[in-house]
Amino acid sequence: MTPSTISFARGAPSLDIVDVDGLREAADRAFRADPGGLTGYGTAIGYPPLREWIAAHHGVDPARVIVTNGSMQADAFLFEALVSPGDAVVVERPTYDRTLLSLRNRAADLHAVPLEGDGIDVDELAALLERGVRPVLAHLIPNFQNPAGFTLSAAKRERVVELAGEYGFTIFEDDPYVAIRFAGEPLATMLELPGGAERVVYASSFSKTVCPGIRVGYLVGPENVIGRIRGLATNTYISPSMVAQGIVHEFCASGALERSIETVKSALRERVERLAAALERDLPDARFTPPEGGYFMWVDLPEGTDVDALFDAAAERGVAFVKGSDFMVQGGESSLRLAYSGVTADQIEEGVTRLADAYRAVSSAPAPSRG
Amino acid sequence: MTPSTISFARGAPSLDIVDVDGLREAADRAFRADPGGLTGYGTAIGYPPLREWIAAHHGVDPARVIVTNGSMQADAFLFEALVSPGDAVVVERPTYDRTLLSLRNRAADLHAVPLEGDGIDVDELAALLERGVRPVLAHLIPNFQNPAGFTLSAAKRERVVELAGEYGFTIFEDDPYVAIRFAGEPLATMLELPGGAERVVYASSFSKTVCPGIRVGYLVGPENVIGRIRGLATNTYISPSMVAQGIVHEFCASGALERSIETVKSALRERVERLAAALERDLPDARFTPPEGGYFMWVDLPEGTDVDALFDAAAERGVAFVKGSDFMVQGGESSLRLAYSGVTADQIEEGVTRLADAYRAVSSAPAPSRG
Repeated sequence: MTPSTISFARGAPSLDIVDVDGLREAADRAFRADPGGLTGYGTAIGYPPLREWIAAHHGVDPARVIVTNGSMQADAFLFEALVSPGDAVVVERPTYDRTLLSLRNRAADLHAVPLEGDGIDVDELAALLERGVRPVLAHLIPNFQNPAGFTLSAAKRERVVELAGEYGFTIFEDDPYVAIRFAGEPLATMLELPGGAERVVYASSFSKTVCPGIRVGYLVGPENVIGRIRGLATNTYISPSMVAQGIVHEFCASGALERSIETVKSALRERVERLAAALERDLPDARFTPPEGGYFMWVDLPEGTDVDALFDAAAERGVAFVKGSDFMVQGGESSLRLAYSGVTADQIEEGVTRLADAYRAVSSAPAPSRG
Repeated sequence: MTPSTISFARGAPSLDIVDVDGLREAADRAFRADPGGLTGYGTAIGYPPLREWIAAHHGVDPARVIVTNGSMQADAFLFEALVSPGDAVVVERPTYDRTLLSLRNRAADLHAVPLEGDGIDVDELAALLERGVRPVLAHLIPNFQNPAGFTLSAAKRERVVELAGEYGFTIFEDDPYVAIRFAGEPLATMLELPGGAERVVYASSFSKTVCPGIRVGYLVGPENVIGRIRGLATNTYISPSMVAQGIVHEFCASGALERSIETVKSALRERVERLAAALERDLPDARFTPPEGGYFMWVDLPEGTDVDALFDAAAERGVAFVKGSDFMVQGGESSLRLAYSGVTADQIEEGVTRLADAYRAVSSAPAPSRG
């Protein structure tokens, strides 16, 4: 009998770290406090009190903020506003698979710049620009990157904003994990660096701090870009869910958000520690850097490891992960992404035991020829 | 001092006919009953229990249903799936301005077929098809059409489905008002007529029966079309708001929906009666057919009436409406749309008094030359 699967695959929180009671109470208060605002159509820019809360949180004018049905929807609007077929777009390698797919579907000319332990290789990016590539957009996930778990250093943030000013491209600072840093010191966003207000469109969401099912994300950017996206949003759906956004606003304004973030951070910190310890014990061939926040840890296995076979062997043993190659246009064949957000600390050790068993089975098999 | 404006412009319910307490209680129960389902990502097809409720309501397999963030979003996905630039699309004349805009933005080749008191002119539609026009889609609002308030007759529904089968186009049956019929007998949807399952994509929403701010709409259609739209939805926003859909499901399953519909119908019935009586008394030049449901009444004024001037004169007197010409590619210059959904019965008489005063002011002015 196959044991119940332990999933290191999905970047989603386990239910035990979602403040369901807080959400329920926020909904109750929100419907009482602003029945007209929650139930009426509202406008495409989002529920105004939440928009103002977000603007204050980032220290910007509300005119620079639009709130959407999740940040993927925000990405879609941004790409529609800025990226035409054939336009050059810089992405990190590896990067979030859905972003890659979305940009490919727009027929963008993708330039994948390697990601290092401290973020995108800025020398490589500069070289690309010097060679004459003129991107309209550079997509970066600065904190606890998905899938790699790496964080862009302060020095590199400054350098990227400088390059954006020099070569006239927009930085898409995709920052859903920023609030769930559980180790190390927070860094300034590119949005708030000198020149960032003109060159950065910043995206984040409440999926990791409230819950994914609420689907509330947002963009902060130059007023003209936000204005264009407001037009797209109006024509696409009139307005996002005022009920969902009203609940989030009440959750934020009441202080439940801060408590929720503490719960999430404390749980993720413990999970990373358990995951790292279990890998060191059971899978000593694995190389990894424990992340300082977020949901994901990137694991490199010895070159030549057949991760496709490992994936199948792991599935047989009841453990799931995402292959590294899913996050790259090319490469990543001996790497994998482990999400620790959706598993409890207790499941982690059993999951790694199964993964290590799968690895031994695959490693002892004849290795496929790599040419 | 300008009096506070009475708006016959916006097709939205006044707050007094929204069951805010029922929504608040539904939210409370939904978070308790299915915390994992509401707070997790869910899937692009929508919150499964709501999808099943909708499928049962229409007597179809759940695989034929997708639930979205409002029905405008559903329209956008449908157009993206079926309409390419240059494709012929049939619309009613007049029709919903946002649909016109959305189709124009996709560079559809629009064919506007006149709307009669019993729905689209099917002879004109047949003639268009016989002349060789081959639409991919025909957009029809069968019940209490926006903006005209007219309803497509049973005989014409059958004829449209026959034509769709004969000429191989998809009928987009856009039916947000179906549940709020307050006079006359309900008619079968085109979806449920023979041949409808293959040729119709049906859209509706909970905006008129629950509230607009919840943003929950849906499509029912052939499985292959729904499957394509599911793919588009996944790539656009991963999933719609599970919280909003979970609340709607609880509202429906608990019986609150039926009570809400009765409240809405009773209020709208009274408003139409008051509106018709006030127009007959104060604005005898107006020609109109009181609708049997929905939000809108179409009013024709004598040919040559300068509705642009009337609009301004009305605004000065504190009353708003939408010009007929906003709903047509051409024409509608002496018509207007009055929405009675957002005004209380008491406001209606004062609003018509102001409108009649504006009309007298405009009529006594020299009429512009119409060539």
